Amino acid sequence: MKLSSLLSKFEEPETLKMAKLGRALRAEGIAITDLSLGEPDFDTPVHIKDAAKQAIDDNYSHYTPVGGYLDLKEAICRKFKRENGLDYLPENIVASTGAKQCIANVVLALVDAGDEVIIPAPFWVTYSEIVKLAGGTVISLPTTAASEFKITADELRQALNEKTKLFMFSSPCNPSGALYSEEELGALVEVFNEFPNVWIMSDEIYEHINYVGKHHTIASFPAMKERTVVINGLSKSFAMTGWRLGYMAACTELAKACEKIQGQFTSAPNSITQRAAITALDAGLEVTKEMVAAFKIRRDKIISLLGEVPNIKFNTPASAFYVFPEVSGLFGKQSPSGEVIEDASDLCMYLLNVAHVSTVSGSAFGLPQCIRISFANSLENIEIGMKKIKDAVQALT
Amino acid sequence: MKLSSLLSKFEEPETLKMAKLGRALRAEGIAITDLSLGEPDFDTPVHIKDAAKQAIDDNYSHYTPVGGYLDLKEAICRKFKRENGLDYLPENIVASTGAKQCIANVVLALVDAGDEVIIPAPFWVTYSEIVKLAGGTVISLPTTAASEFKITADELRQALNEKTKLFMFSSPCNPSGALYSEEELGALVEVFNEFPNVWIMSDEIYEHINYVGKHHTIASFPAMKERTVVINGLSKSFAMTGWRLGYMAACTELAKACEKIQGQFTSAPNSITQRAAITALDAGLEVTKEMVAAFKIRRDKIISLLGEVPNIKFNTPASAFYVFPEVSGLFGKQSPSGEVIEDASDLCMYLLNVAHVSTVSGSAFGLPQCIRISFANSLENIEIGMKKIKDAVQALT
Repeated sequence: MKLSSLLSKFEEPETLKMAKLGRALRAEGIAITDLSLGEPDFDTPVHIKDAAKQAIDDNYSHYTPVGGYLDLKEAICRKFKRENGLDYLPENIVASTGAKQCIANVVLALVDAGDEVIIPAPFWVTYSEIVKLAGGTVISLPTTAASEFKITADELRQALNEKTKLFMFSSPCNPSGALYSEEELGALVEVFNEFPNVWIMSDEIYEHINYVGKHHTIASFPAMKERTVVINGLSKSFAMTGWRLGYMAACTELAKACEKIQGQFTSAPNSITQRAAITALDAGLEVTKEMVAAFKIRRDKIISLLGEVPNIKFNTPASAFYVFPEVSGLFGKQSPSGEVIEDASDLCMYLLNVAHVSTVSGSAFGLPQCIRISFANSLENIEIGMKKIKDAVQALT
Repeated sequence: MKLSSLLSKFEEPETLKMAKLGRALRAEGIAITDLSLGEPDFDTPVHIKDAAKQAIDDNYSHYTPVGGYLDLKEAICRKFKRENGLDYLPENIVASTGAKQCIANVVLALVDAGDEVIIPAPFWVTYSEIVKLAGGTVISLPTTAASEFKITADELRQALNEKTKLFMFSSPCNPSGALYSEEELGALVEVFNEFPNVWIMSDEIYEHINYVGKHHTIASFPAMKERTVVINGLSKSFAMTGWRLGYMAACTELAKACEKIQGQFTSAPNSITQRAAITALDAGLEVTKEMVAAFKIRRDKIISLLGEVPNIKFNTPASAFYVFPEVSGLFGKQSPSGEVIEDASDLCMYLLNVAHVSTVSGSAFGLPQCIRISFANSLENIEIGMKKIKDAVQALT
């Protein structure tokens, strides 16, 4: 009665595992400071909640088109035009149950066994697992805090070859907060121009969580639009993670293929959420800006507190709501109870079980010398959590 | 810039294709009578809508556990105990974005390349496609209206062998309305006892849409519970198709595997829907019984109208909301404009384009001599639609 071989190929997301372990400790009555969160700690704005309640009253409770209502797709097109200067038609758009589903659709629609997929590390935990599921080979391009966790055009060129099918990246980056400028993207585009058969997946779910200025998308380079899939969604910009709504924009052929895959796997996203999403997208970014202002204060706070933790290296993230310190300076040290910290996962377990702070190991993001610390939590909890981390790290010998 | 080979392996669900074609004709201003619907035409009951609105007010808008909130799993366990006499723990339950996602999880968790999966035909459109996606081989066991679209123990025994990994079926059956009695299930169980390594997936999403009496589940046979996955959901019993909530119950090992797959593909179902589902499950079946009483009147009406259509064979469905006539007696005939009806798909396209009634070809369900006609529509529309079908069939020569 054995299970399929697929299961041995990939892991439960480390982010979800840490959330589960934290819940288990909390169920035992232990106060855990959660700095592993991958979502805004804000609630969904009232005008969006009201739109959802209206949709319930209006009985939007029946099957919708697989890729989303037409007027949702139109609202998504307006968003791309208004915020990114990109012209799409509804036929280019597929709405899904979260950006995760969009990414699964895209990878399954593109990647065959033997294809290579280039992913700068650190990367979001799901990218590599979905590529493995599709039978592809992940080519990871590691980066460092010193380079602000960004790859260069030369590094990209060296990784590309005739087997490369897809390049996947996020900017703003989860987990590093890296943000590619227009110039930096332009340098990558020049390299892509030499490799016209490679698709690009640009995950822009953290688009608006940006502390330094304008967001640039690689799809806005004219030569790139047809071969780029832009992934985005409502979760981060509008504090709607539990509602599950992601979307993608691509050339019509790829969008149709993704809709076909989604039709067999899971069908459409929740109908009520789709209606609320139209309101969220059209109502603009005032509520988002308020969240980002709060995140910026927290970022500055956590950066100043990180400076007090010995033997780690870090940069100031330009975007998203994570810091991603290199912690390899702590490897080989011993905890007070005599356990050796061999790697980032050991450090995270030590921080969870001894200091009662949850973080996520960089090994989940393809960069095992780092850990991810989220600042999507209150200033008070950030202070409590960072104090616990500092004390726990100082106790290592 | 080609897409993956996966896409050539499987089709867009025919049900969704017909819905799309119908929408396109309607957009041209043509009045289509929709007898292709795979969902109750009722709205979600008010007490469930109220629970969803309360959940919105209570800010259930954050990430939930991948397999669903613990108290949702507990409500699902209570449902299994109360309605099916089955004892499960929350660790046996996974909630998903629709039964479709549950089925995808189960097949991917069980089926490897080369494994055989036995599916009585007709079967729900997604079963065979997901098996193909996993690399498995579909062994289809065709049935007929004369046998009420049910397989016998002997037919099952002849199909089973050492390569068989999984048996997938639905009772009540979409699209045939077949319902296996306790005795009939018992006969199948005796055969399964001879093949202890085969898993069973029992799709019971239409459980309560039953016109003849008590629902029996194969999982209630003691020897079967550990090796059976029961699939169910809120869509049909509570008119909640657009909300997207399905669930499964299985042994802990398989449930954990399905949660792992779901964590990488799409994550949890909508948080608001999960809260509403607790209310739906605990509030009982009064609203469901009212819907079923209406469906029964419509079933009797459509059966009497089907009797007026020449050259088809059909039985009276015991469950679900479809009739599934054998229409091979019409193959080879010509439409007034001279087109030959070669198969069920031709007939469906003729009915859609000429008679303006949408139905679904049996080829989508693995039984190409039939078509599926839904009676999840008003009595008035059923009368209009069946009149159009009768006239169109009489016009064939």
